[in-house]
Amino acid sequence: MSFLRNCWYMAAWKDEIQDKPLGRQIIGEHIVFFRRSTGDVVALSGRCSHRFAPLHLGKIIDDAIECPYHGLRYNGEGACVLNPQGNGATPRSVRQTVYPLIERYGGYWIWMGDPDRADPTLLPDYYFLEDPRFNYVSGYIHSASNYELMTDNILDLGHVDFLHAGTLGCEATVRAKTDVRQIGDRVECDRWMANEVQSPVINYIFRREGRVDAWLDVRWEPPGLMMLTVGVTDVGASREAGAAIENVHLMTPETEDSTHYFWANARDFQLNDEEFDRNLYESATAAFTLEDKPMIEAQQRMMGTNDLFSLKPALLPGDAAGVMARRTLAKLIKQESERDHAG
Amino acid sequence: MSFLRNCWYMAAWKDEIQDKPLGRQIIGEHIVFFRRSTGDVVALSGRCSHRFAPLHLGKIIDDAIECPYHGLRYNGEGACVLNPQGNGATPRSVRQTVYPLIERYGGYWIWMGDPDRADPTLLPDYYFLEDPRFNYVSGYIHSASNYELMTDNILDLGHVDFLHAGTLGCEATVRAKTDVRQIGDRVECDRWMANEVQSPVINYIFRREGRVDAWLDVRWEPPGLMMLTVGVTDVGASREAGAAIENVHLMTPETEDSTHYFWANARDFQLNDEEFDRNLYESATAAFTLEDKPMIEAQQRMMGTNDLFSLKPALLPGDAAGVMARRTLAKLIKQESERDHAG
Amino acid sequence: MSFLRNCWYMAAWKDEIQDKPLGRQIIGEHIVFFRRSTGDVVALSGRCSHRFAPLHLGKIIDDAIECPYHGLRYNGEGACVLNPQGNGATPRSVRQTVYPLIERYGGYWIWMGDPDRADPTLLPDYYFLEDPRFNYVSGYIHSASNYELMTDNILDLGHVDFLHAGTLGCEATVRAKTDVRQIGDRVECDRWMANEVQSPVINYIFRREGRVDAWLDVRWEPPGLMMLTVGVTDVGASREAGAAIENVHLMTPETEDSTHYFWANARDFQLNDEEFDRNLYESATAAFTLEDKPMIEAQQRMMGTNDLFSLKPALLPGDAAGVMARRTLAKLIKQESERDHAG
Repeated sequence: MSFLRNCWYMAAWKDEIQDKPLGRQIIGEHIVFFRRSTGDVVALSGRCSHRFAPLHLGKIIDDAIECPYHGLRYNGEGACVLNPQGNGATPRSVRQTVYPLIERYGGYWIWMGDPDRADPTLLPDYYFLEDPRFNYVSGYIHSASNYELMTDNILDLGHVDFLHAGTLGCEATVRAKTDVRQIGDRVECDRWMANEVQSPVINYIFRREGRVDAWLDVRWEPPGLMMLTVGVTDVGASREAGAAIENVHLMTPETEDSTHYFWANARDFQLNDEEFDRNLYESATAAFTLEDKPMIEAQQRMMGTNDLFSLKPALLPGDAAGVMARRTLAKLIKQESERDHAG
Repeated sequence: MSFLRNCWYMAAWKDEIQDKPLGRQIIGEHIVFFRRSTGDVVALSGRCSHRFAPLHLGKIIDDAIECPYHGLRYNGEGACVLNPQGNGATPRSVRQTVYPLIERYGGYWIWMGDPDRADPTLLPDYYFLEDPRFNYVSGYIHSASNYELMTDNILDLGHVDFLHAGTLGCEATVRAKTDVRQIGDRVECDRWMANEVQSPVINYIFRREGRVDAWLDVRWEPPGLMMLTVGVTDVGASREAGAAIENVHLMTPETEDSTHYFWANARDFQLNDEEFDRNLYESATAAFTLEDKPMIEAQQRMMGTNDLFSLKPALLPGDAAGVMARRTLAKLIKQESERDHAG
Repeated sequence: MSFLRNCWYMAAWKDEIQDKPLGRQIIGEHIVFFRRSTGDVVALSGRCSHRFAPLHLGKIIDDAIECPYHGLRYNGEGACVLNPQGNGATPRSVRQTVYPLIERYGGYWIWMGDPDRADPTLLPDYYFLEDPRFNYVSGYIHSASNYELMTDNILDLGHVDFLHAGTLGCEATVRAKTDVRQIGDRVECDRWMANEVQSPVINYIFRREGRVDAWLDVRWEPPGLMMLTVGVTDVGASREAGAAIENVHLMTPETEDSTHYFWANARDFQLNDEEFDRNLYESATAAFTLEDKPMIEAQQRMMGTNDLFSLKPALLPGDAAGVMARRTLAKLIKQESERDHAG
């Protein structure tokens, strides 16, 4: 398998990178992240160019990271600023790759491709993670499964009534009127549930009980960035008269068969309510770690190292969005590969 | 390696499949077993045809198994009887493979090959596991070793004096007069010990001490089905004047390097004696789990992924039966493969 | 990767082989070691020629080792001296390979190549491990890393100031005047530190504090045998006026990515001091297990299955000795392979 390189991957939440360096593998490459005294965070290749020791086990000294094995120091531009050994010579080959990194939406985003093409405007618009009118809770989960299985999961929310029965699921999601469309490289999948009883978690969030009109609108953008709007309103009322929360589900491949999963849900009501925050965090964490993660990891084990399509899955209407996303991503990876070989 | 497909494999003891589905891999394929309200048990391919989720984690509803991921329901014929998602369409591709399964000898037997050839009369005759004049105790053990190493083990009982010294072994097994013969695809290996002291376990079972005449008769049938008769009689007396227990050792490949091992021992004496049952169960379990399993797993690790013959083992007279069985099985697998390619 | 075969590998310390056999893998081959009543130790192939059971789990009886599975007994010449099974026939194919083994320097050395070429004079001279004027402490550590990464570690002692800061490291090792030379197949790397403060461990060993002249002289011989002299003397005084300890660091490949690491340090002062012994043992063990081993294993994980040079490491002056050693070893392995193919 190959990965899309010229795109932004969510690398870490802001609070994951504090005083100590963070080591993380992204699309199979070892990266070290560290914060400089100016407050910004930089991303370098994580294996020391000298002997491939893991830089994230080193110390940060004078805005440079010191290799824990032989003490070479690299600054945020990847240059070796100190070789403490012998005559201190630092051949040109002693340097780390620098990856474009930007801070947005409460986290850090890394560009694994050509740095000259790293354009921050290519990020999706998750304004609700930066707008002071919103509060959000967020988390990070590691999963031993391929990232496309995880995007499939969000792109077919019909699973919630079964996998999340009693928590996020109700009996109405499967009956939702579903609209799927592709706009450029974006895939949209909207579900509309008229006059239905929603799940306990939805009822808790929106302080509802009984029948409502509700919607679940998913936006997928390559390679694995998803936004999900969950809203409810009175039966027959306009959406505007109701309320909605905005969720992100951001899947970053660690390797071919493991994924960094970043999630957040944001709201513009019930602000500054710590108990509410805690309950949202715990219900999301429980659903992801106790329900989604074990199922998708089991699915991965059942599939072994085989690609989904090579196993000839039976395709159902609910797979339409997931298949569109997989085909779009495959097309982009192929285009990138052809451009690389042409260039 | 390839496996014989057109044959019966022991899949589970009856008490392993009760209210909940059982997931088990057989010759590398994932299978789900579940019981219907009529009491019969069915076997379907264990990965949902839609997204390869593990069906054995699902619920049994109306004699169908519900996929725990998206709620598709499959009946015992493998047909999708309910797609709760969207318009409920169930394309023909949404179905599970059904494996012929029969209940015999206290357990379930699965046919991994062409269903039209699944003939129950091909099962060996283990009447003592169904005859009310017998009592039996039985067990299941998982081993991280190839199933042919486990059939070799039973086909060369000369090992018991060493591997099971002090329990199942005595000093006479190695001196037994041994007869090996092949009858069609069956291999028989009989050991006769005249006027010898038997092992503590044999003495306990038959309430004996001192010298006896004793026999150990093994019947192997492909792919890994073995029956072992253990008998003792007074020195010089007829076999009929003595007593015997009938054992089965049934090896079902889970994968190339792991095995489901089903065993039972049956007797037509000392009936309805729970303490005796418990002692038989415990001595067999101890021997298999503390002595055979660790040795065969170590043997497997020493061999790595190499086939036995490729490592050029030194062959001794005691290997005659094991080698006959391996060659017979290899011939049958080859014939099956040729028939498949010719067909 | 291939290994050098016609050379001595350290196999075990003397106290590792007492009453019981020892099983150990060396350059990927399973070996069993056992002591005979005459006191000498022999090395045979560790998988029984019959069924590949692990001989080291067997008993030693009459200077022969009994296979724990079927009771075949092999003497120290690898001959099967008893087949307890059946008619007791012992075909010629029932035998174990014998590996030349010599006892030297407190341990056993094994020759994995042509026995006719096993010449004890090819062993390096580690007289201090046999000379009664010396005391030594020694240890064994297993590491999940390739042995050449472990020889690189000793051949570039510039790492101690970082990896062993506060224990074996000081701030002077990196500033040492370093001389590297090759003499035949031996690589020598000498470090000289004039008028420097040494590490806490060095100060403890030599009962020093403050500035001294000090040296670290490494001798590498293929495939992974290293001697390290650590000495201190008064500033400006002769080496002879000071004191030194002699260390060995002996790396024996277990497999391509795991290593048996034998170490010892010997002194001709502070003799018969058990507390001193204990402190030396503990400081060495702590440094190797808590600092070197985790770093080199991490380095191995970062490199995956890739060879060091294939990853194009940036080479620094401190790598000179390590690179010489790697090239020498590669040349010897190539020569051996060519000779084998020519022969």
